[in-house]
Amino acid sequence: MIDLRSDTVTRPDDRMREAARDAEVGDDVYREDPTVNELEKRAAEVVGTEAALYVPTGTMGNQVAVHTHTEHGQEVLCERESHVVKWELGGMAQLSGLQVRAIEGDDRGVVSAEQVREGYVAEDLHRPGTGLLTLENTHNSKGGAAIEVERIAETAAAAHDLGVPVHLDGARLFNAAAALGVEASEIVEPVDSAMFSLSKGLGAPVGSMLAGGEAFIERARRGRKLFGGGMRQAGIIAAPALAALENRHRLDEDHENARALAAGLDDIEGLSAAEPETNITLVDCSGTDHTAEEFLGACEGEGVLGVAFGEHVARFCTHWDVGEEEVEEAIAAVERAL
Amino acid sequence: MIDLRSDTVTRPDDRMREAARDAEVGDDVYREDPTVNELEKRAAEVVGTEAALYVPTGTMGNQVAVHTHTEHGQEVLCERESHVVKWELGGMAQLSGLQVRAIEGDDRGVVSAEQVREGYVAEDLHRPGTGLLTLENTHNSKGGAAIEVERIAETAAAAHDLGVPVHLDGARLFNAAAALGVEASEIVEPVDSAMFSLSKGLGAPVGSMLAGGEAFIERARRGRKLFGGGMRQAGIIAAPALAALENRHRLDEDHENARALAAGLDDIEGLSAAEPETNITLVDCSGTDHTAEEFLGACEGEGVLGVAFGEHVARFCTHWDVGEEEVEEAIAAVERAL
Amino acid sequence: MIDLRSDTVTRPDDRMREAARDAEVGDDVYREDPTVNELEKRAAEVVGTEAALYVPTGTMGNQVAVHTHTEHGQEVLCERESHVVKWELGGMAQLSGLQVRAIEGDDRGVVSAEQVREGYVAEDLHRPGTGLLTLENTHNSKGGAAIEVERIAETAAAAHDLGVPVHLDGARLFNAAAALGVEASEIVEPVDSAMFSLSKGLGAPVGSMLAGGEAFIERARRGRKLFGGGMRQAGIIAAPALAALENRHRLDEDHENARALAAGLDDIEGLSAAEPETNITLVDCSGTDHTAEEFLGACEGEGVLGVAFGEHVARFCTHWDVGEEEVEEAIAAVERAL
Amino acid sequence: MIDLRSDTVTRPDDRMREAARDAEVGDDVYREDPTVNELEKRAAEVVGTEAALYVPTGTMGNQVAVHTHTEHGQEVLCERESHVVKWELGGMAQLSGLQVRAIEGDDRGVVSAEQVREGYVAEDLHRPGTGLLTLENTHNSKGGAAIEVERIAETAAAAHDLGVPVHLDGARLFNAAAALGVEASEIVEPVDSAMFSLSKGLGAPVGSMLAGGEAFIERARRGRKLFGGGMRQAGIIAAPALAALENRHRLDEDHENARALAAGLDDIEGLSAAEPETNITLVDCSGTDHTAEEFLGACEGEGVLGVAFGEHVARFCTHWDVGEEEVEEAIAAVERAL
Repeated sequence: MIDLRSDTVTRPDDRMREAARDAEVGDDVYREDPTVNELEKRAAEVVGTEAALYVPTGTMGNQVAVHTHTEHGQEVLCERESHVVKWELGGMAQLSGLQVRAIEGDDRGVVSAEQVREGYVAEDLHRPGTGLLTLENTHNSKGGAAIEVERIAETAAAAHDLGVPVHLDGARLFNAAAALGVEASEIVEPVDSAMFSLSKGLGAPVGSMLAGGEAFIERARRGRKLFGGGMRQAGIIAAPALAALENRHRLDEDHENARALAAGLDDIEGLSAAEPETNITLVDCSGTDHTAEEFLGACEGEGVLGVAFGEHVARFCTHWDVGEEEVEEAIAAVERAL
Repeated sequence: MIDLRSDTVTRPDDRMREAARDAEVGDDVYREDPTVNELEKRAAEVVGTEAALYVPTGTMGNQVAVHTHTEHGQEVLCERESHVVKWELGGMAQLSGLQVRAIEGDDRGVVSAEQVREGYVAEDLHRPGTGLLTLENTHNSKGGAAIEVERIAETAAAAHDLGVPVHLDGARLFNAAAALGVEASEIVEPVDSAMFSLSKGLGAPVGSMLAGGEAFIERARRGRKLFGGGMRQAGIIAAPALAALENRHRLDEDHENARALAAGLDDIEGLSAAEPETNITLVDCSGTDHTAEEFLGACEGEGVLGVAFGEHVARFCTHWDVGEEEVEEAIAAVERAL
Repeated sequence: MIDLRSDTVTRPDDRMREAARDAEVGDDVYREDPTVNELEKRAAEVVGTEAALYVPTGTMGNQVAVHTHTEHGQEVLCERESHVVKWELGGMAQLSGLQVRAIEGDDRGVVSAEQVREGYVAEDLHRPGTGLLTLENTHNSKGGAAIEVERIAETAAAAHDLGVPVHLDGARLFNAAAALGVEASEIVEPVDSAMFSLSKGLGAPVGSMLAGGEAFIERARRGRKLFGGGMRQAGIIAAPALAALENRHRLDEDHENARALAAGLDDIEGLSAAEPETNITLVDCSGTDHTAEEFLGACEGEGVLGVAFGEHVARFCTHWDVGEEEVEEAIAAVERAL
Repeated sequence: MIDLRSDTVTRPDDRMREAARDAEVGDDVYREDPTVNELEKRAAEVVGTEAALYVPTGTMGNQVAVHTHTEHGQEVLCERESHVVKWELGGMAQLSGLQVRAIEGDDRGVVSAEQVREGYVAEDLHRPGTGLLTLENTHNSKGGAAIEVERIAETAAAAHDLGVPVHLDGARLFNAAAALGVEASEIVEPVDSAMFSLSKGLGAPVGSMLAGGEAFIERARRGRKLFGGGMRQAGIIAAPALAALENRHRLDEDHENARALAAGLDDIEGLSAAEPETNITLVDCSGTDHTAEEFLGACEGEGVLGVAFGEHVARFCTHWDVGEEEVEEAIAAVERAL
């Protein structure tokens, strides 16, 4: 099977496994796990923030950030198709009492400064005030679009002018940095907090980082405890995560593979796939008379896995368990499937 | 002053005042207030539901309905500009943990069946299920558009096919019925619950009704208590409300006045106003070089009150404290103001 | 029927009814109802606070106060048997995300300063901080005990020393004042906010007041809107409430009647009733081999209504619809019932 | 340093570390991590339930259980000093809108069947219904009391008779089993769900299990995702956890050490310590003129760590990083400290 469902399926390599075995550990609830402490320090350095917090999942990172930035009952501005709105069980409303005000970004998921100003609501007797803006980069639902630093900066500046903090869901932050040819810290610079995943393209077995200012991270620590994310000898997973952090320099390979995959699939009769910006290839199968579900079923029969992203859209994700060769095989398999 | 800010400013007439004085009362928490009981029975008859509940405000009626139909953590489909989203302090998220999924209706605020099907989310491991669809008729933010029975029916049917109940914010339900030339019960027939206001065009001093099936209203009674709406000798306000209920037959006057007002204002240089469907006149003052706030300030100086509804849009509402004559005066005053 | 279930059953007299009919009204959401404004001003004067807010029910008054004083996720110290814990549908947790830390008061419901210090929790990584102390006076579940000003002051001072604000549920505040021979303002002086009911012993048809500092009441206005308590021409019920406010001087009669009732019932074989402090008579029927429910069923058959307050405890409330004569009749009826 | 602050400080041994390195992994969100699947299967077998779920922390296990058993707005019966009430940031109220009704257990934290019946509240117009009973075994705040199976069974039966499910916080479930000389499954048998920690006495680096019926665990999976506990290649930590599970047979050592520690400390002038039931030794230092904080400061100076559990009570926990010898050293060190 060539598993292109998600870059979350990546398995740790031997270096990470050795790191897990050899990790120096302590009780992280007491902040005495040296490996977790090192990971948090290193992660903050990499993205250029004062501090960072290790959390078991990206969903927790996002939800803790949202909880920490806001007051119960406020409104949050989010791109309509963003992960935090679509795939986190309505946690912003359910866990933090926040009303989502969705903004329809452009076809790459970019939210403009103007849209932020329009969507902003000042607190009054009848209206919850806007308490937060969330952005996503790369934007998963928009095929992994890597939003440019200036766009992020403009949008964030509009929010800041209104007194609204900005959280970045950077689950695939390093994919964005690689595609844009910038440091991750440049993308994070204009925002107040950023979450990034260690377990997607980087390949760590478990965990994400929430990065931000020192005072923010201090309060976020309490939110993490509330949601049940205060682990004990977490050095065992922080150690491979530390190793994985260095994989941020190899993401160009995944992007190249994604482009090769898209080109190959686009050549198949009935399929169309635009050139991906990062590691996510969206394939439109409208021309095949099949729904995405049916198409993916056929692909699975030939040894290739993807996920449905719409009635006629399938998503294939490249990642470090998939090389050039597998991509070629995958194209051939999809062709057979149709 | 000619007060056109809202139809909420209507004052009770002598008949209502006498009714308040003479009301037979009891403790409504024990369900022993005969006047409240009569109002609830009568209101249910008028809109053709099994039961109805008297609530102190329209906001409570909507929030209790939403709370009663859903489970904490679900998603609610709402027209993007609807009152329940914009003007109720994010109560759906704050009080009931619900994530709003806003649908952009057409320029009259109509949500199509197709949009409901697109917006619907089936509950799974990552997604809150859709628990409710709310509609609004007349649609306040869209200039009091009176949405046709067939449109309501189509949209509600789409929701019902997906197992999703429908609540109608009918704060101005009888305005819709008058404009459409139908009985209110025809508008309510396709939905599962409806709130309507007694204190807007109908002129009652206090209160709204939440109407629906018997089992629903029984549970809503608990929601009303939770939010603090279980009043005692409420017959004192239910009695004028009963009288006000009969005012539903006079709303055509308000609509005629609104049309006259719109026509008069549209003739003024720099202003434009489309023909209103009901009692809400939206005036665009872009042609005057003034913002709506400035324009309304000038109007106030000449004795006419309205409210801003956008940067260059002012809203004027007709209602039973405003006759033909006042409308003529208002037009003249606005002309002087510019 | 002699209705002793609750003082909530009191019906407005002609003076209140005339006041309702003649009330000058406006739209209170715009703060233009002169009668509501007058009631709020007068109520604040009577209890000695800067401001006050008219709310449709006592439950709303309490819940708005709690919501306004706290942050979502804090802890609230409450007497274990208090109304806000027992009879308000868990609103503190459900609407404001607050964890109740119940304190077992003494047999009159008095919470000591020591208990406040013991119950207090400082916010840390694992513990929600204490955000509020609520008190109740008179204490309903403890037979209407009128808690002395010094006790309130001591307990409140302990909270204040810890930085914790204090809300008083004074649904029957004027009963306490009458029994203690003090002004209501003396009872309210040590606390940060107080709710009192206009519709119990005072006899108004609808409503309660939430009193406190100006900034607090300003924020509470927003909480009232959130819960759906922002009524329109509320002058119609504020006017009788204003009249009812003067009834605070006649509550001694109810207390005298309660004492007479208790004495009479205590003389009946099998019943025991301590001398009531205010207008609530608790009767223990353990000596009759009947449960409270059975006992009250028999009483109802003879024309007297009360409510069960425990397996063998019945509560009878005196109020202004019940005079000396009815009390005598009630005693005779209960005797016949057994 | 001899670290007796908590059994959470235990560090994984080489067997666990090797297991981490060699773990077969997959994406557990897709339920494809064979090691997690094995751990969940094995854990369910060990405690005799249909299913089990791996969660990153005990707090998440408890909060997910509470969230899954209840409806938002209900009441939960809990022992007053239990972890879920005291140390989880008020999560039941904050995350699930639940009102705590605290029961004062006996001096070992046992809640009687009678107390459950008294605390139970049937849902009505004014009262949230009781939705859950939580128990704790061993009871941390009561010095690690190991509550007998019959007591658990009686209490749970009382809840079940009222239609109320029961969750057991068994963070130290296997300590209870060891002390009582029973299988853990016997303790779990009378309840509907149980959480137990893998990272305390068992020594796993990270994680706890939530065990229960199949349908319950299926729904709990969704709660885990909501709170952000759905990890990816969690086999890396599930593998050492599987190894740790076998450590349940060695807990008697910790208990013996705790008894030796208590005996030794009790002999010291000014200290008193009852014989511990399991691995938690509570030491009263009232006789020393020092607060617990001061006493522990002095101990730290001599190389022994504990935590304050009250103004004059210190808690020392034995665990597998502490042998017989360390206990003797600890006693000597405390003696020096005083």
